[in-house]
Formats: sequence, structure tokens, C-alpha cells
Amino acid sequence: MPQPTALITPGDLSPAEAHALEQALQAGALVKGTTSPNPPVGAAILSAEGELCGVGGTQPTGGPHAEIIALAQAGSMSRGGTAIVTLEPCRHTGRTGPCTQALHKAGIAKVIFIHADPMREAAGGAQELQAQGIKVAQLQLEVPELQPWLSSVRLGRPHITLKIAQTLDGFTSAADGTSQWITGPAARENVHQDRCTRDAIIIGTGTALADNPSLTARTPSGELYPEQPLRIVIGSRPINELMPQGNLAELGFLQFPDIPSMLSEIESLGLRDVLVEGGPRLAGSFLQARVVDALRVYIAPKLLGSGTPSTLGAGVNTLIEAHEFELRSTTVLGEDILALYQRRNPS
Amino acid sequence: MPQPTALITPGDLSPAEAHALEQALQAGALVKGTTSPNPPVGAAILSAEGELCGVGGTQPTGGPHAEIIALAQAGSMSRGGTAIVTLEPCRHTGRTGPCTQALHKAGIAKVIFIHADPMREAAGGAQELQAQGIKVAQLQLEVPELQPWLSSVRLGRPHITLKIAQTLDGFTSAADGTSQWITGPAARENVHQDRCTRDAIIIGTGTALADNPSLTARTPSGELYPEQPLRIVIGSRPINELMPQGNLAELGFLQFPDIPSMLSEIESLGLRDVLVEGGPRLAGSFLQARVVDALRVYIAPKLLGSGTPSTLGAGVNTLIEAHEFELRSTTVLGEDILALYQRRNPS
Ligand SMILES: NC(=O)c1ccc[n+]([C@@H]2O[C@H](COP(=O)([O-])OP(=O)(O)OC[C@H]3O[C@@H](n4cnc5c(N)ncnc54)[C@H](OP(=O)(O)O)[C@@H]3O)[C@@H](O)[C@H]2O)c1
Ligand SMILES: NC(=O)c1ccc[n+]([C@@H]2O[C@H](COP(=O)([O-])OP(=O)(O)OC[C@H]3O[C@@H](n4cnc5c(N)ncnc54)[C@H](OP(=O)(O)O)[C@@H]3O)[C@@H](O)[C@H]2O)c1
Repeated sequence: MPQPTALITPGDLSPAEAHALEQALQAGALVKGTTSPNPPVGAAILSAEGELCGVGGTQPTGGPHAEIIALAQAGSMSRGGTAIVTLEPCRHTGRTGPCTQALHKAGIAKVIFIHADPMREAAGGAQELQAQGIKVAQLQLEVPELQPWLSSVRLGRPHITLKIAQTLDGFTSAADGTSQWITGPAARENVHQDRCTRDAIIIGTGTALADNPSLTARTPSGELYPEQPLRIVIGSRPINELMPQGNLAELGFLQFPDIPSMLSEIESLGLRDVLVEGGPRLAGSFLQARVVDALRVYIAPKLLGSGTPSTLGAGVNTLIEAHEFELRSTTVLGEDILALYQRRNPS
Repeated sequence: MPQPTALITPGDLSPAEAHALEQALQAGALVKGTTSPNPPVGAAILSAEGELCGVGGTQPTGGPHAEIIALAQAGSMSRGGTAIVTLEPCRHTGRTGPCTQALHKAGIAKVIFIHADPMREAAGGAQELQAQGIKVAQLQLEVPELQPWLSSVRLGRPHITLKIAQTLDGFTSAADGTSQWITGPAARENVHQDRCTRDAIIIGTGTALADNPSLTARTPSGELYPEQPLRIVIGSRPINELMPQGNLAELGFLQFPDIPSMLSEIESLGLRDVLVEGGPRLAGSFLQARVVDALRVYIAPKLLGSGTPSTLGAGVNTLIEAHEFELRSTTVLGEDILALYQRRNPS
């Protein structure tokens, strides 16, 4: 008879386990943007004496999962120890062997995982560990870095975040078209850091033609981050011919005529977590298609009263049709607010 | 030779002084909205043994200042004690006797005040206390409740806060005019609480005609708060005749044809702290006149993409002309964000 997995809260953790949890969360956050189609998981191992002896994050596709890296680091110290993993260990044999088996072989006595694995072929890891005599507990916690992947598996399409950088009254440029800079340096740096954690950045042909943007993730001094997201343009205008910097495909841009064709194509490319960066008409189209799962809104302390709105054509006429979101966090970045939202009713 | 006043920080306070400071701040906050043209000051008295023996806030015009209330409560326990006051004690004889003299007579040995008094005829209180042998220190701290009054004295006109309740993309109603409710119950309750702390609420004729608003400060169950702000309408349309609920003046509304005439008139009425509640054209006019000193923005987690913008005609064409503010705080109210701003460059 399979036993139900014990549910615990962060308050139930020993100090050593709480420390290992921090390490596992950090390791997962660090690899976000490099693991798709796999999830950015983090793992940490405590020896039987409660010593932290291994930490790891999921490696790029084909490489080992987080647990395997952490176990390798721990070596024989994992015998009788505890593994803390941000996602339920897998029990399937995909490109890599099942992690449940590796944990068992390493002599792990207790596994604490956070999110249950929503993928049908991988799930059941907790049951299998228990069947092997390992103590298993699920920690009630939300790992923000795993949300896009979890949502993507549930929805069967990539998770879509709409990024907006606007004035307090919702404009992305002034009446005469000036838009540099709406937000301050801390917000702009944050945009670049966030880009690294995404699988792709998406813009419309309007923005491609108007701004000729590089869409790369750069450090404040202008250097490229090692991980770069895929760059995608949506629209039917022949960007390749119209853009001054030459052939877009050679520059690593992909173009799609519309949102549905883009979504099905990038799903099959293994993309899980994409960022829509505008412009306003494309943002409106994503909203109208009701596929915006999260908002990342940078709000500058400025009022313009007129200009280009952050979204156009969102398809709303009356208040009850509004696109509704749930506030997840607010952060002050220099003089700007960064507000993160999740869609209220994921469909 | 007058000595410079010692500057101290909250870290320099004894635990008893820190507790008395909290009480003084609370007492000042409690009377905000009832004291104009006087400032909403709070005071607390510690006995020589460090016991809290008196707390008070400024009474309505003609009534005693905060120090006098607190001293009366303390009685003989103030001898050798410490007074903590949010504003430098006055030394002028206005409607009430000078507080410096009352503190001296009560045998106070030490006075800690926060903001210096910016009014010419009242200033010099700290020097006078020192001349009488009282130890005086100025505490480096900002009392939010005193800011409108301080700013009003500096500017020689009432302090103006623009309130905006909008969607994330800056709309106050949807394309078809629906606007109930953009923000949630916690934000709406906060609006009513805030109204009590203001000397007046200002709207345009457009809002008066469209919404026929009561503009009263009400509890969630609909009862009137004891303190009600003055209600002001700006515009030339004959509101009195057009509004269905009858004579506005009888209902306690004042009407002014434009912003300058309103400002000079209400200054002479002793108003210090007023709230502009819209609509969008009036909000735009206040911005264009560059007299908006603070923003109180309620941001709902909704995107509309079109509708009535929160401000119209703010007079900005290019980004460097934007009305710029400084973020002072963000608070989550239910599902909404409340963001408070101050004007960047008070003129
Ligand atoms: N401040 C910011 O955060 C920010 C960010 C991005 C852009 N911007 C500004 O926005 C301006 C461009 O605005 P925009 O609205 O013209 O550009 P846009 O939204 O980038 O592009 C509009 C184009 O996208 C395509 N498109 C949109 N929805 C579609 C759909 N449902 N199906 C198929 N194609 C679709 C169409 O392309 P085709 O017509 O080619 O079919 C449409 O003309 C630029 O000035 C840029 O600087 C500002
Ligand atoms: N969600 C919210 O927070 C909120 C708040 C308030 C209002 N609203 C909505 O806003 C809508 C009304 O908008 P609105 O823009 O027509 O109304 P409004 O801004 O309240 O009133 C406009 C009128 O104010 C007067 N005015 C404006 N600026 C002036 C200036 N510089 N000098 C002299 N008079 C000036 C003019 O009156 P005359 O033409 O009479 O001279 C003008 O027609 C309503 O539907 C209301 O529901 C929403």
C-alpha cells in the first residue's frame, strides 16, 4: 500500500536542513534559463551528521539533474544523509538515469522535496523512494524559479511573461516619441538580468523596425552575459529585408507570422519560459489571446498624461472583461517599482 | 551667545525616550485633519524617573497646543522631566501662550523636538529654551503627518496631494465608462480614512456632474467619520443648478472658477492640506500648473488597454518635460498597491 507523503512546513526543518534548503534554492535559481526543456532544479545533501556536503543545479539538456551533481559532490558522505530537492526526484529513465535510483544507491535516508512533479512519466518519485525505505516529506513552499516550468507543463505550452516598462500613468513613450529613459539604471539592469533567465524574448515587427534592438542580455558595462535567450519577432512584414542591420536569421532571430504558430513551434523546440517585451500592439495581442501568464511591470515615478500606452488592442470594452492578475511582489529598484503579477485564472 | 542645537538620531534615545517618541508620533497622527491652520503636532512627557506621564496632540484652532495638553496631563510629574515634541515648541504669543514658557514653568529639564519650526514669528523656540537652561536636542527624523503643513508654510499655499485610483495601465474607467470597482475594498476604505486627515477634497465640475459624489469620509459600514473635509468643486459650469441633489452650497460645497482663485481663497481660510480627487481633466490641470506636491496612487491588478486615462492635458509633449516624483513608500492593500510620491523639485 503506497503511503501518503508527509507534508511539512519550513518551521519543521532543523537549522541544518534550513541551511541546505537555502543552498538548494540558490542552486536552482542560478541555472534558470539554461535548462529547458528541463526544470531549473536545485538540490543539497546533508551527511548523517547534518553537514552540508553537496549542492547542485540541473545541467543543460542531456547533462545530469541537480540531485546527481549534488550526490557526486557528497560522495560517500551521503550515506545515511538527507537530500533536499526543489522538485520531486524523477523516476523515469530519460536521457539520464532516474534520480530516485541514484538517491537510493547513495544511501540517502531522507528526502525533502518541494514541488510535486507534474509530468506524467516522471511522477511517482516520492512513492518509489518510500518503497525503497527512504523517509520522504514534501515541504509546503513556492519556488518562484520553478513556476514558469510548472505552469508550462500544466498548460502544454510555454509560460508567457509580459514585460512592461512604463510611467505611472501607463505610457512607454511621450507624445513626441521620446522614451529614453522612462525607467532608471537599476530597473534597466534588472531587465538584462531577467533576460538571462528566459528561454526567449519576443517582440513585434513594429518594435523591430522602430528600435532595431539587439535584445541581448548585457551587464551594466555592456558585456554579453554567457547565457543569451533566443530572439523572436512576430508579424508578417519582411523584417529581414527591412531592418538595417542585415539578415535577422543570421543574427539568430526567428520570425513567426502570428502568436499560435510561434507557440506551437517553440513548444516543440523545448522552450518553457518566454518573455514578451512589446511593443504595445503585440502586448495587446497577447492579452487579447488570453495567454499572458505573468506580468513584470517596471513603474517609473513620472506622469506624462499622453503618449504611447503600454498596451494597445487588449480587447476589453467593459470593466468586468479586464485582464486580471494577482500581485505577487513589489520591489523598489532605484526610483522605480518592479511589480510582479500572475494571471488570476490560469486556463 | 546662542548655542547650536545638538543633533541626535533615534539610536541615541533611551528606551523610555523611544517609547515616548512613539506616543508623541501617534498623538500627532491622530489629530491630523483637525488642526489647520495649525500643524498636527504630538507631544509626550517623561518624568525625571523616565515614566511616561503625559501625551497630547494639537487641539483645533484656538485650543491648546500638543505640549500644553501633555503637560497638563503630567502635572507635577513633569518637574525635572523630558518633553518629546514632533515640532519645535513655539515661542510666540498667538491665540495660545508660548509653549516654551509653559515647558519652562513646568520644570522640564530636557526637550527633544523633531522638525524645526519654519514660521518666522514662531521660530527661535529651541534657542529660548536653551537660554532658560533647558537641555535641547533635535531628533533627525521625518514625521510624515507634518510634511503637508511644513510644505504649505514653505510654499505659502496649501499643500496639494493628487489622488489617483487606476488600473495598472493608468485607466480610471473602461472604454464603455464602467469604473465600479477599479480598486478593491481595502483601497477604498483607505481612501475614506485618508479623507479624514485632509482639510479639503477637490473635484472638477465634470466629476460633480457625472458622479454626483458625496465626497464624505465614511467607515466601511457607511457611517460618517466625525471629521469631514471641506468639499470644493472647480470649474465654471453652474453646478448648483445642474446637479440633481440640489443646492451645493447648502450641502457644504464651495465652487471656484479656477485653480488660482481657489488656492488664494482657501489659503486665507487657513487650509493647509488638500486632496485633489479628479477627474482626469482637473488632475491634468493641476499637473500642468505644476502645483502637485504629492501623489497618492492606488494601482489595481488589471489591464484594460483602453478607457479614460487617469490624467488628461498634463501639458507634456516630450519625456524630459515629464512630471517627476520621488517614491516615498509602497504598501499592499488587499490586491492593490498604494504608492506614495513626493514632487521631485518643490518650487
Ligand atoms: N518602453 C517599452 O517598454 C517598449 C517596449 C517595446 C516597444 N516599445 C515601442 O513600441 C513602438 C512599436 O509599437 P508597435 O505597436 O508598432 O510595435 P509592436 O507591437 O512591436 O509590433 C506590432 C506588429 O506586431 C505584429 N503583431 C502584433 N500582434 C499580432 C498578432 N496577433 N498576430 C500577428 N502579428 C501581430 C504585427 O506585425 P505585421 O504588421 O508585420 O504583421 C504588428 O504590426 C516602438 O516605438 C517601440 O520603441 C516600447
Ligand atoms: N476613478 C477615479 O479615481 C475617478 C476620480 C474622479 C473622477 N472620475 C471620473 O472622471 C470623469 C469626469 O472627467 P472630467 O475630466 O470630465 O471631469 P473633471 O476633471 O472632474 O472636470 C473637468 C472640469 O473641471 C474644470 N476644470 C478643469 N481644469 C480646470 C482649470 N485649469 N481651470 C478651470 N476649470 C478647470 C472644467 O470645468 P468647466 O467646464 O465647468 O469650466 C472642466 O470641464 C467622470 O466620469 C468620473 O467618474 C474617476
